[in-house]
Amino acid sequence: MIYRIKTAICAAAALLCTLSPAQTATVKEDFRPSSFNAPGQEYPMVNSQGYARFRIHAPEASSIVVTLGGKEGTALRKGDDGYWTGTTSAPLDEGFHYYHLILDGGVVNDPGTGFFFGSCRWESGIEVPAHDQDFYALRNIPHGRIEDVLFWSESTGQVRRALVYTPPCYYRDRDRKYPVLYLQHGWGENETSWSVQGKAGLIMDNMIEDGRIEPFIVVMTYGMTNEARFGTIRQFDVKDFETVLVDELVPYIDSHYRTMADREHRAMAGLSMGGMETHAITLNRPGVFGYYGLLSGGTYTPEELEGSGVKGVFIGCGSKENPDRVTEAVRELQEAGFNAMSYVSPDTAHEFLTWRRCLYQMAPMLFRQE
Amino acid sequence: MIYRIKTAICAAAALLCTLSPAQTATVKEDFRPSSFNAPGQEYPMVNSQGYARFRIHAPEASSIVVTLGGKEGTALRKGDDGYWTGTTSAPLDEGFHYYHLILDGGVVNDPGTGFFFGSCRWESGIEVPAHDQDFYALRNIPHGRIEDVLFWSESTGQVRRALVYTPPCYYRDRDRKYPVLYLQHGWGENETSWSVQGKAGLIMDNMIEDGRIEPFIVVMTYGMTNEARFGTIRQFDVKDFETVLVDELVPYIDSHYRTMADREHRAMAGLSMGGMETHAITLNRPGVFGYYGLLSGGTYTPEELEGSGVKGVFIGCGSKENPDRVTEAVRELQEAGFNAMSYVSPDTAHEFLTWRRCLYQMAPMLFRQE
Repeated sequence: MIYRIKTAICAAAALLCTLSPAQTATVKEDFRPSSFNAPGQEYPMVNSQGYARFRIHAPEASSIVVTLGGKEGTALRKGDDGYWTGTTSAPLDEGFHYYHLILDGGVVNDPGTGFFFGSCRWESGIEVPAHDQDFYALRNIPHGRIEDVLFWSESTGQVRRALVYTPPCYYRDRDRKYPVLYLQHGWGENETSWSVQGKAGLIMDNMIEDGRIEPFIVVMTYGMTNEARFGTIRQFDVKDFETVLVDELVPYIDSHYRTMADREHRAMAGLSMGGMETHAITLNRPGVFGYYGLLSGGTYTPEELEGSGVKGVFIGCGSKENPDRVTEAVRELQEAGFNAMSYVSPDTAHEFLTWRRCLYQMAPMLFRQE
Repeated sequence: MIYRIKTAICAAAALLCTLSPAQTATVKEDFRPSSFNAPGQEYPMVNSQGYARFRIHAPEASSIVVTLGGKEGTALRKGDDGYWTGTTSAPLDEGFHYYHLILDGGVVNDPGTGFFFGSCRWESGIEVPAHDQDFYALRNIPHGRIEDVLFWSESTGQVRRALVYTPPCYYRDRDRKYPVLYLQHGWGENETSWSVQGKAGLIMDNMIEDGRIEPFIVVMTYGMTNEARFGTIRQFDVKDFETVLVDELVPYIDSHYRTMADREHRAMAGLSMGGMETHAITLNRPGVFGYYGLLSGGTYTPEELEGSGVKGVFIGCGSKENPDRVTEAVRELQEAGFNAMSYVSPDTAHEFLTWRRCLYQMAPMLFRQE
């Protein structure tokens, strides 16, 4: 009897010892390939709880760490077959996450994924399914187009690139003109980040199909953020990008697309450092934009907006950021008589699901005021 | 005296010993970053002779081989600073080359480059400047757009993607209709390969600006090539892609773009396995396309084209491939009364500079016949 009890206790202890302490929660074995994997690639995988699992072939490597799953990342273990595997010790937030591998001390990407521009490099990325993911699903409905546009910039002496979303009816309703949202990415990102990581085109398609918004054009260009080192952003001078955006890109868009070219039908919004740029440029150029959006990118005060004639202000962030500051700022704007809206994305941080949701919440308020 | 001579000989010998035997040819130290590097990345570099030099940070790695520079690739050497460096032992051909790293037995990309879909994966890539590169240069001229289009495919039960090049005047000349070239990639590639590796949009922009061609639309979609394993391509059944292209994509393009929707103004061309698909589909569907192009992708015989009503045939390849077969096939077609043109790209093999040049040579013959 005592022997059996001791055996049972030892067996249980041995079992517990094979699990790392943080993994004693039950990890459901319903892992599926991440939707942002490269074609045909099974790994990385994500389960219904948000745990991520990795599998990398590197038979002679000494160490591989995945930069996800806490500050230390997730150290993988090598199997006899030369494959390194591991699972995050806790679930990730819903939505998209950048990452890379530290393989024998070198930064390389996980060969299983596509590539996503962030942190000033083409990173790997993983998508954790979200409970509200329908709003960015790829549906069998009319789709707009993401148009890869090259425009000359005199101020920077080079050809520059913008990705322009045109709504599904744009090709067909040839006398119709459309409002324009200029939508900026954050530090370390580029002109592709909103349409790829942000799924901006799919979100627009779905909102238009569901009658949530009237169609408008979205312009996404590189915000010249990446010369500024992270940590020096406060010393960043927005003037160069302000010139490109307002004096070069806006005229290009207005002359090459059927736009409603007035401030009541021109909005600017940005995430993170793109919000900082939006704040600066909208205040520097009050006659240009009629609607302003800051997505995890600061706030406006009533004093800043006095006399601006702004038609609408959206300020959003994730619940894990500083939501009180956002809701308080909007409350003050509303009390001062401004058309202002706040939004706090539940259970997300400074990450792309926050900003997909912000776009979804902000869009219906744009271009509606007389 | 003798001592000094001995010292000089030893020094010279030591210097020679630090070079691998194949590198005793003089490598010019005029290396510059490859134009396909990721932003801010200095390596890989290319010199004026076409040698490529690599530098990868992986301080704890045991071996890194770059899959360029001959069948064995280029083995890198680790320095005290944890960086692995090396130079190809011979120059590469002009133009674009796919590659990756074998790092401690694992296939990963060079973190210094962009990414290019080939060999069924997102590869690293390097660009060797070419003596005739002006025809694909990025110039300060009016540019067309590469439009990212999503269309429903009933036959495959999913939303599919095409990249559609529209010429610079397309937005402006709103009553004008345009011919269409359907341009296919090769095995292992995808719908991005022609516009990225192939620089198809820039080549079109330049030809239109220089009056070399009248503007036309170019449609680039995924040719469903990658289920076929390399080596089994002959057993590949083109029927699935033929249905998608002819029965779904062509009608989508004709109803969403201002096209001249008849066979005299519709061409199909493809590289490598895309040429094989072109050969099969043009012969299966003689009423659809009026111009055919095979780029390192086989040939036509006069018997195959008899009664087809084809308006023009282009067949090209690299000089390092099978040029005699190409020129002979075209000679036979011409003797049989067909409007046929051959082109052999000098000093290139089965690689993208061959196909950029083929596009440049083929385009002026399209859509010109009554």
